[in-house]
Amino acid sequence: MIQPPEEMAIDTRPWCRAHRGRDYSFDEFLKLIESFHGYPAPGVLIGAKMADIAMRRMPAGVLFDAVCETSKCLPDAIQLLTPCTSGNGWLRVVPLGRFALTLFDKRSGHGIRVYVNPAWLEPYFETRYWFFGTKPKRKDKSDLLLQEIRQAQDRLYGIQEVRVKPEFLSKTPSGPRAICPECGEAYPGGHGLICRGCRFETGYLLSEEIK
Amino acid sequence: MIQPPEEMAIDTRPWCRAHRGRDYSFDEFLKLIESFHGYPAPGVLIGAKMADIAMRRMPAGVLFDAVCETSKCLPDAIQLLTPCTSGNGWLRVVPLGRFALTLFDKRSGHGIRVYVNPAWLEPYFETRYWFFGTKPKRKDKSDLLLQEIRQAQDRLYGIQEVRVKPEFLSKTPSGPRAICPECGEAYPGGHGLICRGCRFETGYLLSEEIK
Repeated sequence: MIQPPEEMAIDTRPWCRAHRGRDYSFDEFLKLIESFHGYPAPGVLIGAKMADIAMRRMPAGVLFDAVCETSKCLPDAIQLLTPCTSGNGWLRVVPLGRFALTLFDKRSGHGIRVYVNPAWLEPYFETRYWFFGTKPKRKDKSDLLLQEIRQAQDRLYGIQEVRVKPEFLSKTPSGPRAICPECGEAYPGGHGLICRGCRFETGYLLSEEIK
Repeated sequence: MIQPPEEMAIDTRPWCRAHRGRDYSFDEFLKLIESFHGYPAPGVLIGAKMADIAMRRMPAGVLFDAVCETSKCLPDAIQLLTPCTSGNGWLRVVPLGRFALTLFDKRSGHGIRVYVNPAWLEPYFETRYWFFGTKPKRKDKSDLLLQEIRQAQDRLYGIQEVRVKPEFLSKTPSGPRAICPECGEAYPGGHGLICRGCRFETGYLLSEEIK
């Protein structure tokens, strides 16, 4: 039987697997990205492959936390595929600006770091343009970009065995809450005599008005 | 017909509504919390009611961003109900330690802030114990706690009209990426001559080894 050339073949491999074992096809995961992230972002697609690579290399049964080195796109891939979310304390975003994630054993700190290796983007023009931000976003090329990422499979990513600093392993419990004498709201007593929201330099509000 | 006392009546009101219009019953949303957050956290349940209250008060059609004043639980409620996620840039966690969220118009900065009002927790013993962290967590009481939160409906939350500081409205584009001469990875060129990951003081890794 005549086979189509490789790049024309219909790719039936799953794109990624979630921590509970569910496989997502490329198109299924693209839909999940749209529903959670708002639009089919290439960064979340790439991030899903990265999270998938890292999870497959973690020893079975290990409870792991995640560190994400950028706040752009990648946190959502981690939240969609691993048990780690922004709100449950198992995902920490450390804004280093690198497109990289680490999953690590909560107790030992040993883990796997996966990153985009710029050298390996060379043959993928659209991906390179998008990743380096050297050309304005081209909406008409966005499907080409997604298909390039798909074709590249796991060829864009470097993998490292790493150890995480001890201060990232232990979580200091926030202790009992106190009532702030300025706003009357509760806050972690250890923060000081008034809450951080009532110190102008840390707040984000210009004005407030009780309804 | 004889009616059961109010606290015994089966509560059929939806607990919260997601931004696309889907209503969740209390039990449905508890399941969604378990699947995303890992366990039926009271903080996410409370957070969902808070996000619901805030969204209903935003003018129709306004594009809004979210600020969350704690990293505990509340970010997940915001991510499950609003279009704002950690990875799409529309949710910002400002770690003030208060259990409060603000949704605001991306352009004008006008918005709605919803917070837990400690004074209104008075009649809800389990909720008060849990919120103030004054007693150790009691697993056997966790269902009682969830049911108390349910019965309280929207009676625990204060609402304010607020304006957000201008620096929270504009997002500085990160600009083109450069290659770090130390690690060979890409990073936002504006960060300096080497990437933040290669400055020991900002990194989170003790050691790394290329596989």
